Amino acid sequence: MTFLYKADPARGETWARLFAERAPQLPFRVWPDVGDPAEVRYLAAWQPPEDPARTLPNLEIVFSVGAGVDQFDLGGIPARIPVVRMMEPGIVEGMVEYVCQAVLSLQRDLFDYASQQEAGVWRPLPVRPASSCRVGVLGLGMLGSAVLERLRLFGFPCAGWSRSPRRLEGIACYAGPRELDAFLARTDVLVCLLPLTNETRGMLDATLLRKLPRGASLVQTGRGPHLRQDDLLGVLDDGHLAYALLDVTDPEPLPADHPLWRHPRVRITPHIASATRPETAVEAVLDNLRRHWSGLPMIGQIDRSRGY
Amino acid sequence: MTFLYKADPARGETWARLFAERAPQLPFRVWPDVGDPAEVRYLAAWQPPEDPARTLPNLEIVFSVGAGVDQFDLGGIPARIPVVRMMEPGIVEGMVEYVCQAVLSLQRDLFDYASQQEAGVWRPLPVRPASSCRVGVLGLGMLGSAVLERLRLFGFPCAGWSRSPRRLEGIACYAGPRELDAFLARTDVLVCLLPLTNETRGMLDATLLRKLPRGASLVQTGRGPHLRQDDLLGVLDDGHLAYALLDVTDPEPLPADHPLWRHPRVRITPHIASATRPETAVEAVLDNLRRHWSGLPMIGQIDRSRGY
Repeated sequence: MTFLYKADPARGETWARLFAERAPQLPFRVWPDVGDPAEVRYLAAWQPPEDPARTLPNLEIVFSVGAGVDQFDLGGIPARIPVVRMMEPGIVEGMVEYVCQAVLSLQRDLFDYASQQEAGVWRPLPVRPASSCRVGVLGLGMLGSAVLERLRLFGFPCAGWSRSPRRLEGIACYAGPRELDAFLARTDVLVCLLPLTNETRGMLDATLLRKLPRGASLVQTGRGPHLRQDDLLGVLDDGHLAYALLDVTDPEPLPADHPLWRHPRVRITPHIASATRPETAVEAVLDNLRRHWSGLPMIGQIDRSRGY
Repeated sequence: MTFLYKADPARGETWARLFAERAPQLPFRVWPDVGDPAEVRYLAAWQPPEDPARTLPNLEIVFSVGAGVDQFDLGGIPARIPVVRMMEPGIVEGMVEYVCQAVLSLQRDLFDYASQQEAGVWRPLPVRPASSCRVGVLGLGMLGSAVLERLRLFGFPCAGWSRSPRRLEGIACYAGPRELDAFLARTDVLVCLLPLTNETRGMLDATLLRKLPRGASLVQTGRGPHLRQDDLLGVLDDGHLAYALLDVTDPEPLPADHPLWRHPRVRITPHIASATRPETAVEAVLDNLRRHWSGLPMIGQIDRSRGY
C-alpha cells in the first residue's frame, strides 16, 4: 500500500518528510521512483501519469495538489476512482492575501502613482474611499467566499456571482446567467475565482468585460483559459477597462514576446496568487485518508458531472 | 461667532456645504474671506495665519485638518487656545488600507514580479506565508493600533513600539528606548506611524535601520523629517534593506531630480496614504464643538508638553 506523489520534486521532498513524521506506516514515494506499480493505492498529482488505470492498476484515490482539477483529463481516470481537489487553509490564505493586495492597489491608485514616479511627478489624486469601490467576485466557492469575507472588513461594497444561488452574510449574491448582467453593472473591480469548466472557458470575453462600468478593472485569479486575452487588449486599449492584474495566462509561462507583458495597464504575476503549502496540504490529505478508511466522505471530492 | 476654514479651497467648498446642512446656525467662512476678524472663534487649518492671536483676536480653538499638528508653529498660538488634531474614521481607514496594501505587496514579492515583468520573465518565487513576515509598527496611537489590528487578521506576527508602555490584544508591545533594539531585531517590515516631535525627528537613521534584520523593508507613513533620506539610500544600496515605500518625504513635493525617485527599490506616493475626509471630518469637528460648549474635554486635544 503505497502513496505516490507526482508533482514538483522539490516540494515532494517536503511531502516525504511530513509523511514520514505523520504517517510512518504508509510507504511514500516520489515519481518517477514508483517501486511496484501494483502497490500504489493513492496518488497526489498535478498531472496523473498517462492512462493511470493501466500504469497503476490498484489505484484507489487521486488527489489533486491544486485547488482545481481542470488540469486533469478526467475521462482518463476510471469513474470508480474518486478525484479529490485540494482544500487546505494555505491555499485560501494565499488567495486572500493576493486579492486584497490587488484590490487595495487599484482602489488607492498605486499603479497611477508608479507611472507618476517614473516621470518624477508628485501629484496627489483624490482618494476614493473603499465605500465607492464596488468589488465583485465571480465564483463563490471556498476561495471566493474567503476573499469576500476579508474584503468586507475594509468597507468595500461586496458582491458575488455563482452558478447556483448562495447566501453569504453582508455580500450581495447573484446567481445564474440571468443575474450576471446586473452583477457586472455594479462592479468596479471584477475578481475571477471560477473553476475552469466547459461552461466557464472563454467566459471573460469582450462582451462580458464591456458590461462592467467604464473605468473598471479586472483581477484574474482563475485559470488562464477563462480569459480571451485578445479581447482584453481591445477593452484596455479603448479605455473601457482601466487595469488588468493577471496571475494566470494562456499559455503558461506566457511567452517572453507576448504583448501582455509590455502593456502599461497590465500587471502579471506567474501563477503565484495561491499555492498549496506542504505543511497544511499533507495534513488535509492525511485527514481525507482517515475519513476514507473510516467510510466517511472525503472533503473536496469532485462531482464529475459538474467538473469541480 | 464665525467658524473659519483655512486649507485646500476645493475641500473648503465641501466643508461649507456640510456645515450649512449640519450646523446652519454657525456662520462658516473659507480663508481669505474672513469677514470681521473679531467674529472668528473657531479655526480649522492646515497652517494657521501668521500671528493668529493678533489676526483673530477672539480665537478660542484651533483645529488641525490633519492627523498631526507638527506643521503648526505651536509657539505662535497662545497657551490659552486649545489645539485639537483630527481624529476621524476617514483618516484611520485610509491609513489601514495603505499600510495593508504596502505590507501585502512586500510579503507577496509584488515589486520583484514587477521587475520580472519588465524583462518578460515568468519565474515563480517561493511563497512566504504571512506567519513568516514579522511586521512592526513604530507608534501605537489611533493609527498604529488600527493598522496592527487589521494586519493581525492576515496572520502577520505583529509588534508595536511606543514611547510609553501600551497593551494591545495579540500585539507584542515594546516601549521606550531600552526596548527599541529588541523590537527592531524581530521586525521584517517596519512601519513608521510616529508623531513628529523633537524626539522623533531624524529617528529613522542608518543606525536604527541597520538594527533591522538584513532584507527587511521600510514603510514610511509618518512625516518626512522622521527619515534621514541619505542614510536610507546607503542602507538600500549595500543591500541591508530590500525595499522602502515612502508616502512622505522631506521636502514635499520631492524635487523631480531627487535620486529617491529613480531608485529601483524605492516606491514613492505623494503623501496620500491617509487624508481627512470632509464628511467624517466635519462630523468630528462639530462633535468636538458640542463637547466644548457642554464643558466636556475635546477628543484629540494635544498636550503641548509632548507636542502631540
